[in-house]
Amino acid sequence: MSEPLNFDKQNGLIAAIVQDAATKRVLMIGYMNREAFDKTLATRHVTFFSRSRQKLWTKGESSGHFLLLQSIATDCDGDALLVQAQPLGPGVCHDGYESCFYRTFENGSWSESEARAYDPAAVYGAKQ
Amino acid sequence: MSEPLNFDKQNGLIAAIVQDAATKRVLMIGYMNREAFDKTLATRHVTFFSRSRQKLWTKGESSGHFLLLQSIATDCDGDALLVQAQPLGPGVCHDGYESCFYRTFENGSWSESEARAYDPAAVYGAKQ
Repeated sequence: MSEPLNFDKQNGLIAAIVQDAATKRVLMIGYMNREAFDKTLATRHVTFFSRSRQKLWTKGESSGHFLLLQSIATDCDGDALLVQAQPLGPGVCHDGYESCFYRTFENGSWSESEARAYDPAAVYGAKQ
Repeated sequence: MSEPLNFDKQNGLIAAIVQDAATKRVLMIGYMNREAFDKTLATRHVTFFSRSRQKLWTKGESSGHFLLLQSIATDCDGDALLVQAQPLGPGVCHDGYESCFYRTFENGSWSESEARAYDPAAVYGAKQ
């Protein structure tokens, strides 16, 4: 099969959904450029391209909470990835939660639907 | 909690990951603008904004394979949604697969990792 990934549609980036390979919980979404994709495969540590900082970042480089690559899939139009990973550490979210998707919409308003999994100040320092 | 959704970061759009509420399989990713989000909540049929056609589209409007909204969560920076849904029909992908993520990367190349769930020509017509 020819290369299905299409980095042209979103200015060199594709969306990368990270799912816990064991529990199937969706943990986060980031964006990868070709370099981040290649580095993820080479190191088996999931690596993104930060749109705000305009550089590569390997999840866990600050916290030690790396995401160990298990498998990777792409979608029908090749502009998104589904990354199955094993999270090292109690949570992927820099706010202290297991998943970045910790707020749910119910009865017309948003609320936090779970407790923190760790203290982000202890991991990232007081300044985040 | 104040409104966490941030439609400004991506030109009025936020990413919307759709996960099968029962099996936890990630089925697809689309994008929503505010109108699509509001329509999804109002109709309980997951609705996106098509970037290529520049208009709202309700998944299933052609195929009958609607996605029935079960719950909705947002991530820490409010530019993505995780939508739990019940898919009506055998698959969400217009290529005939249960999930749009039907190609996996193994041993250095991409391959289709599952069989089609339905015949897309029979659902969408010969021309897609």
